[in-house]
Amino acid sequence: MSQATNVRPLGERILVKRIEEKEQVKGGIIIPDSAKEKPQEAEVIAVGTGKTLENGDKTSFEVAVGDKILISKYGGTDIKIGDTDYLILREDDVLAILK
Amino acid sequence: MSQATNVRPLGERILVKRIEEKEQVKGGIIIPDSAKEKPQEAEVIAVGTGKTLENGDKTSFEVAVGDKILISKYGGTDIKIGDTDYLILREDDVLAILK
Amino acid sequence: MSQATNVRPLGERILVKRIEEKEQVKGGIIIPDSAKEKPQEAEVIAVGTGKTLENGDKTSFEVAVGDKILISKYGGTDIKIGDTDYLILREDDVLAILK
Amino acid sequence: MSQATNVRPLGERILVKRIEEKEQVKGGIIIPDSAKEKPQEAEVIAVGTGKTLENGDKTSFEVAVGDKILISKYGGTDIKIGDTDYLILREDDVLAILK
Amino acid sequence: MSQATNVRPLGERILVKRIEEKEQVKGGIIIPDSAKEKPQEAEVIAVGTGKTLENGDKTSFEVAVGDKILISKYGGTDIKIGDTDYLILREDDVLAILK
Amino acid sequence: MSQATNVRPLGERILVKRIEEKEQVKGGIIIPDSAKEKPQEAEVIAVGTGKTLENGDKTSFEVAVGDKILISKYGGTDIKIGDTDYLILREDDVLAILK
Amino acid sequence: MSQATNVRPLGERILVKRIEEKEQVKGGIIIPDSAKEKPQEAEVIAVGTGKTLENGDKTSFEVAVGDKILISKYGGTDIKIGDTDYLILREDDVLAILK
Repeated sequence: MSQATNVRPLGERILVKRIEEKEQVKGGIIIPDSAKEKPQEAEVIAVGTGKTLENGDKTSFEVAVGDKILISKYGGTDIKIGDTDYLILREDDVLAILK
Repeated sequence: MSQATNVRPLGERILVKRIEEKEQVKGGIIIPDSAKEKPQEAEVIAVGTGKTLENGDKTSFEVAVGDKILISKYGGTDIKIGDTDYLILREDDVLAILK
Repeated sequence: MSQATNVRPLGERILVKRIEEKEQVKGGIIIPDSAKEKPQEAEVIAVGTGKTLENGDKTSFEVAVGDKILISKYGGTDIKIGDTDYLILREDDVLAILK
Repeated sequence: MSQATNVRPLGERILVKRIEEKEQVKGGIIIPDSAKEKPQEAEVIAVGTGKTLENGDKTSFEVAVGDKILISKYGGTDIKIGDTDYLILREDDVLAILK
Repeated sequence: MSQATNVRPLGERILVKRIEEKEQVKGGIIIPDSAKEKPQEAEVIAVGTGKTLENGDKTSFEVAVGDKILISKYGGTDIKIGDTDYLILREDDVLAILK
Repeated sequence: MSQATNVRPLGERILVKRIEEKEQVKGGIIIPDSAKEKPQEAEVIAVGTGKTLENGDKTSFEVAVGDKILISKYGGTDIKIGDTDYLILREDDVLAILK
Repeated sequence: MSQATNVRPLGERILVKRIEEKEQVKGGIIIPDSAKEKPQEAEVIAVGTGKTLENGDKTSFEVAVGDKILISKYGGTDIKIGDTDYLILREDDVLAILK
């Protein structure tokens, strides 16, 4: 995973690693198969520099590196670094942080 | 429901628990079958940090944890924590608070 | 109608009660069958807290509780409280106030 | 037409009365049948309170009660008060004022 | 054309008179038949009061009464005043001023 | 080309002259036939007055009269002045300036 | 590549050179064939002047000339300078910088 630290997402984007489903069951959250829009668990590996507002300011991120999160199934771009699947997505596609 | 408290919705999102239909009837509000867009009763379990406006400020929530609310049938993402169905949705998909 | 007072619409939304067509005829306004988009008469039962502008301010409502209004046929969500039909809609779907 | 004065359009909306085609011919403006989007003549009966801008201010109306106007055929909602056809539309659907 | 002066376009709209094609040839600009979106020559007869910006200010017009202009073929509403064809369109549908 | 100087584009629009393909080859830039969206070389003949921002200010142009530019194939309106093909397009449809 | 330095992208656009797939494998990032939206590696050759915000300010670029980046497969315009393929795209279509 050393190479993943070499990917710096742009703007409001974050880099996340999908958490395998058997690991997800341990966390106690099950996504029903019948769910209209299935969310997925993931871990935040890197965050960008923030979204640029119309007044030129950058927003700060709610998510932090290391956070376990729920993400929307749609949105984001899959990349593979070494043997691991990663996803680059906008923070607005993050549904929740799992504490 | 202890685990649901571990889910912190992002931004303008909230986590709600659907209220079963027999419980809904007690509350006196019946959603007609013929309704174009059927609303549902739910209880607010957790709220996010607020919506970011273009000037960078965060809005505060109108709904509070514990509120009984009416939500639009469309919108939101189903998740299951333990045996209970939850929904993560944006506050703008909340129609009303039931006092 | 005591229960309807327990419904507090969110943001720019209002709760209205449809006015039956025979009551509408008394008021002197007839909606022609051939109308492209048929409006309806309704009475305002409750109003929300106002629409949030991009600068964070809330707008005030033009309609007030007790007002007779004309509403667009499209838009809004039907709910039934006891035996009475209600509708939750955004104030922007209100066409006019009938004085 | 006394009852039409009881209709107060909301926000940027206006209440207008269609002007019959034979009356229109007198005014010297003829809408060709082949026109892509046929405009119509109408008289302004009532105006709303203005459009709310993002800074919370209300715009003032360009049209005034009594003005003869040209309106776009599309847009607006037909209502009948007594035996007369009226139309509620947004001021932005008004093409021109006829002096 | 005296009657055309009685038409005051609303907001960012202008009233223009189409220039016949034989007159256009004199001006040296020929619109190829194969053009994807054919522009047309027209003369500005009247202008509105300007577009309202979100801060409430009105923009001023670039075109002035008497200007010969090139307009997009799409957009605008045809009207006939006496025997002459006119067009009401938004200033943003004007491509260029011909000096 | 004397007549082209009589065309003053409106707002954020510019007037450009297409550069023939054999001339383009000289410049060393070749647009592959398989390109999804083929750009074209052109020369800037005239610029408008700038785009009006929501605060009422006008933006200045990045392109200047005489610049060789790359433009998107889609967007813009063809006009013919004398025997030469011109194009009126918005500056946002310009991809790059060729120095 | 001397000629590529003669291309100055407009506004928020950048000029990039695609990195061949065998070179990409060396970098350790593999784009899975099954990826919904395949990203690509590229090198930044030139950047524009920045995006114009509604207050008239220009944003600065996150990417710099020489950066290796991941770009979305969709978006951008292919051009060929000499024998090399280039792409002009908006900075918002850049997913990440590879350090």
